[in-house]
Amino acid sequence: MPAEGDEMHEPNPSPGDLPRLAGAALTLLRERGPRVHCITNTVAQNFTANVLHAVGCVPSMTISPDEIGQFVASADALLVNLGTFDAERRAAIEIAVQAAAGNGISWVLDPVLINRSPARADFARKLIAAVPKVVRLNTAEFAELAGRAGGAETVPDYARGNGCVIALSGATDLISDGERHAAIANGHPLMAKVTAMGCAGSALIAACLAVEADVFRAAAAALLLLGIAGEIAAGSAKGPGSFAVAIIDALYALDGATLIKHARVS
Amino acid sequence: MPAEGDEMHEPNPSPGDLPRLAGAALTLLRERGPRVHCITNTVAQNFTANVLHAVGCVPSMTISPDEIGQFVASADALLVNLGTFDAERRAAIEIAVQAAAGNGISWVLDPVLINRSPARADFARKLIAAVPKVVRLNTAEFAELAGRAGGAETVPDYARGNGCVIALSGATDLISDGERHAAIANGHPLMAKVTAMGCAGSALIAACLAVEADVFRAAAAALLLLGIAGEIAAGSAKGPGSFAVAIIDALYALDGATLIKHARVS
Amino acid sequence: MPAEGDEMHEPNPSPGDLPRLAGAALTLLRERGPRVHCITNTVAQNFTANVLHAVGCVPSMTISPDEIGQFVASADALLVNLGTFDAERRAAIEIAVQAAAGNGISWVLDPVLINRSPARADFARKLIAAVPKVVRLNTAEFAELAGRAGGAETVPDYARGNGCVIALSGATDLISDGERHAAIANGHPLMAKVTAMGCAGSALIAACLAVEADVFRAAAAALLLLGIAGEIAAGSAKGPGSFAVAIIDALYALDGATLIKHARVS
Repeated sequence: MPAEGDEMHEPNPSPGDLPRLAGAALTLLRERGPRVHCITNTVAQNFTANVLHAVGCVPSMTISPDEIGQFVASADALLVNLGTFDAERRAAIEIAVQAAAGNGISWVLDPVLINRSPARADFARKLIAAVPKVVRLNTAEFAELAGRAGGAETVPDYARGNGCVIALSGATDLISDGERHAAIANGHPLMAKVTAMGCAGSALIAACLAVEADVFRAAAAALLLLGIAGEIAAGSAKGPGSFAVAIIDALYALDGATLIKHARVS
Repeated sequence: MPAEGDEMHEPNPSPGDLPRLAGAALTLLRERGPRVHCITNTVAQNFTANVLHAVGCVPSMTISPDEIGQFVASADALLVNLGTFDAERRAAIEIAVQAAAGNGISWVLDPVLINRSPARADFARKLIAAVPKVVRLNTAEFAELAGRAGGAETVPDYARGNGCVIALSGATDLISDGERHAAIANGHPLMAKVTAMGCAGSALIAACLAVEADVFRAAAAALLLLGIAGEIAAGSAKGPGSFAVAIIDALYALDGATLIKHARVS
Repeated sequence: MPAEGDEMHEPNPSPGDLPRLAGAALTLLRERGPRVHCITNTVAQNFTANVLHAVGCVPSMTISPDEIGQFVASADALLVNLGTFDAERRAAIEIAVQAAAGNGISWVLDPVLINRSPARADFARKLIAAVPKVVRLNTAEFAELAGRAGGAETVPDYARGNGCVIALSGATDLISDGERHAAIANGHPLMAKVTAMGCAGSALIAACLAVEADVFRAAAAALLLLGIAGEIAAGSAKGPGSFAVAIIDALYALDGATLIKHARVS
């Protein structure tokens, strides 16, 4: 949990402040090494764990009902990712979300591919009613969530109506808590050619929530870290294989000055 | 599903045509971005997803009984891989194969390590009776399948008898539908030093089935893509770790002229 | 299983002999290609399989109760890793340990994160009563095991009391069977920044048990291989992403002379 009195708790930053705040969050991640418990799909687990390690976090990933409550209660943040949506994983999610609520632990929902599965979309809606701090998703997934609410609800409306921050990934990432908005134009097309890149973004949001109490800033910080690391990685990559390796190296090497230099936020 | 009138639907190509047809299939993969649903073992999932992304496909990997039917029904091809053979995965396979049959979706069977497990071999035989378009496997796995049928059944006999294409991986890959045969001498010994390389080959066959209606050509195209990418990757790799990265880069960079230049098909 | 009369069965080597013995074990791994069955967490599976392939082994990873007995019975060593501690995995472990005992197959326990989960710690204690040859773990995990036994039991005492070798990973690895002790100062800080590195170390211990009957030497050999490969990998890595790739290349390229040159054992 972020300590009271963090220098980062300034009200209403302008978008121009976000790169500096992202650098401050990165410094805190490396200093504190927060524990991030991830319920995530088996495709994404290894990459997600390495992304979290690269920014200084300690990931854990159990889904056993006998122990997930304890893991979450002793974690600093929680990721709930709906990919590979098996029965034990769903049971684990319910226990984990309850443990997070009971212990004041922030959590992020990544409703992977709900546009392909009504059962998964229903489960996602039920989870959003339990109020994750952030929902990170892509356009097709957002359309599935917001479309059902009766017409094309906007991202800010949906965020305000559900009391969470929406982080919408795309060529430009959009982040909104209903009042504040940021558009992050960082990133690289190769990010869409590597599996679990979005899942890793959600994990980084969970990580930032462990050190930054302002949810909007935490979400923006995480997507800035990933987008800028992606641009740097693309500079040396020969294709999506070497890109997936290089983005972990780039996250590990990132610093505040690089974030400020590369950020394209409006 | 391949559109009617694809330029690729020429009858009975000579082996010399296969490299050109593989290039045409690769172009279609990149243009159409087919969805390939993969039921595959947890060891192979990440690498398989990245291999599919590298050739332009959209992979999905859920095994939840509540949603796999919908995922398969909205996919363009299906892979059924028997590694990490747990109970939920078997239930998922039965639903998926039924959904594939009901929606005219081609599927590939990869009977991983059936030579080590009678239970798995029995399950594979039951699945072959449901007529996958292609069975991709290695020599020990084929011996387990074909040996039981009473003596050393040949690859063409087994393919003819079971109404499917057999793609037998090895130093030289053999592909047969019982009438047509191809031997692909591409590939590199490092491919046997990286886990899930065979699984990735099966996933590429599923991908090619989504754009090439001639099953024999689709299987040959996929193994040509992988074998030639392996040769290119070996040129820059320092060992199996960097090879696994480089083969994804090589698949991403492949083009028709490179396929024709490198192919060793007879 | 190691053949009778292996040149390696010399009694009580001095620590100075261990690098040479590690080289001999590596040679045997590549000559014999032992089968190593791994019950390991889904985060670690792919990396573990590639580490085992890099030293010449044949990994398998099923956890299906219907077949794991057969896989273990036809394996040369077994790894039991408690990460991602789900119900089916626990059932598989019980069958596997019984099959190992019944067939004289050596096994290694990796009690991942038992310090975070009482249920997992209890399960680990039950498994240690079934006498694994080696328990590999870190300091926090050892404290959880040894602390319960009434005060700060030392590593040699715990090893002697439980009839197994303890391999304690850290900046310096400590290996003890209660009588003999070795401290291995090889390795690199980047090893702690890559997920599943400890799990891979445990898998390498299982591999070495398949070719070296002296359990203490097998454990020391495995951690020497990994630590020295880590140092070599760090020489070319740009961060933890490229390090995870390079350590597999380094394991693949290791030889006896390099082990002797780099080893720091006391």
